[in-house]
Amino acid sequence: MHAADTLQASIDRTGSLAVVGLDPRPALIPPALRTQALARHGDTRLAVAWAFAQFNRGLLAAVQGACCAVKPQVACYEAYGAPGLQALEETISEANRLSIPVIVDGKRNDIGSTAEHYAQAWLGAAPGFTGALPAGPKGDWLTVNAYLGSDGVKPFLAHGAVFVLVKTSNPGSGEFQGLKLADGDANMEAMAKLVRQWGEGRTGACGLNDVGAVVGATWPAEAKRLRALMPNTIFLVPGYGAQGGSAADALAGRRPDGRGCVVNSSRAIIGAWEKPKATDWAGAARAALDAMNKDLASAR
Amino acid sequence: MHAADTLQASIDRTGSLAVVGLDPRPALIPPALRTQALARHGDTRLAVAWAFAQFNRGLLAAVQGACCAVKPQVACYEAYGAPGLQALEETISEANRLSIPVIVDGKRNDIGSTAEHYAQAWLGAAPGFTGALPAGPKGDWLTVNAYLGSDGVKPFLAHGAVFVLVKTSNPGSGEFQGLKLADGDANMEAMAKLVRQWGEGRTGACGLNDVGAVVGATWPAEAKRLRALMPNTIFLVPGYGAQGGSAADALAGRRPDGRGCVVNSSRAIIGAWEKPKATDWAGAARAALDAMNKDLASAR
Repeated sequence: MHAADTLQASIDRTGSLAVVGLDPRPALIPPALRTQALARHGDTRLAVAWAFAQFNRGLLAAVQGACCAVKPQVACYEAYGAPGLQALEETISEANRLSIPVIVDGKRNDIGSTAEHYAQAWLGAAPGFTGALPAGPKGDWLTVNAYLGSDGVKPFLAHGAVFVLVKTSNPGSGEFQGLKLADGDANMEAMAKLVRQWGEGRTGACGLNDVGAVVGATWPAEAKRLRALMPNTIFLVPGYGAQGGSAADALAGRRPDGRGCVVNSSRAIIGAWEKPKATDWAGAARAALDAMNKDLASAR
Repeated sequence: MHAADTLQASIDRTGSLAVVGLDPRPALIPPALRTQALARHGDTRLAVAWAFAQFNRGLLAAVQGACCAVKPQVACYEAYGAPGLQALEETISEANRLSIPVIVDGKRNDIGSTAEHYAQAWLGAAPGFTGALPAGPKGDWLTVNAYLGSDGVKPFLAHGAVFVLVKTSNPGSGEFQGLKLADGDANMEAMAKLVRQWGEGRTGACGLNDVGAVVGATWPAEAKRLRALMPNTIFLVPGYGAQGGSAADALAGRRPDGRGCVVNSSRAIIGAWEKPKATDWAGAARAALDAMNKDLASAR
């Protein structure tokens, strides 16, 4: 089954274009959970990792059915070493169990057999000494950075689906992505053309393909231009809300049929309990997600 | 202390420009170690990770004093999940104990607080609930991909030193890095100019700075052009040997004073035992490293 079809089916089932970013930080852990973590493990990497796993378990139960996917940010877990990675694996496993598509946000990149290892880590299974090891919890999609060219992207495609960084949401993304090429394109447009090529022959029944693009909500005009270059590409859209992108901005790159954009929100959902210090943090996350869905629906 | 000075001091002490790539794979684990790992843990992620840690411990003892740095490739460990990351942490810790500079090859990239988390993971320490956690084993350098621009590089520089991908060793690296810009530069040259900027104010006593560049040995003509754009930048040079770069190619980008290049080799060293199936795998690695040092010295 194409990852694009699984994602589109999840959109159709939930009616949501929202992707919940699971980007936990110690400061985002609700007080009761923090107290429990400190009591169990002291102030250690293990305590933080334990809290992340519990927090995500509660969040996944709360957002289930109201988002099309979740997107854990690997950096948040990696900062806590092996225990952090264990918490991420538990989180992906729980999302797998709940049949929520998982976009692993790792922005990985390398070439040849090294890229294969990243693909094994997040999309497939690694070899043991005598054969393939059982696959653990696995993502449906992995974000990748394609500065290395096709040599750094194709190895991933043998294992699963990717979102390639094209136009990122940060204010300074134009510094490199916006450089004008001799042929008139900007770098992001050259990248978009590569993304389109890589997606050829990988199109699902829904008409979209398994090589997506990251296109920030903070660049709606660019998103429209990029859509013309990538008609059958799913856009993963960061930068909605906190970073300044409105619902209309976030969906600026959608296709004429309304498809082709999924929109991430992290802190506004998982940190919704912070104001006004709700004790029901899972309920606060769901309420924030419902509000986001309403906002996106109004712009569809 | 600047990471550039620590690395230059290591070069001066060992007389070597060689970086030993610690990129273990199950197929590269010598038979005796493999048998031990299987007996201890069966054919599991834990067995592979245990073997990686033991293998690296032996390799580090063997190459100590004869290389200027080691470069673990994160992907190889990440493929084995939390146990794999644990093996990498043990490896970095052992290199720290032996005072061998560590270049963490992760090609990480992200913006703002997310980039901070990667920096915490590999160059610094992460926050707990009540303050900073004790720093674990840490790299001296981290490889980063700067497609996101300054927003994706500066957060790393607050924590340590980086090597930015400029011209990678793969045959297809020109596909994107070689695109011609309207101002006459190729993309790799635009990246080189950014690298030079980022390095300003970060120069050590040795005259080199803490923002290095990855420049493949497979592109000697480009390395010379890139040196002119980055006079005080250390080049981390992959692609020597197996990928086709000679010693002269690998050192093509060195400065007039002979400084400014370190050259990676992975499989030819750590897999030297494979032919002719040496039982002393650590000795075979050291012999291969000695031969590489001789080869590099002849081209210096």
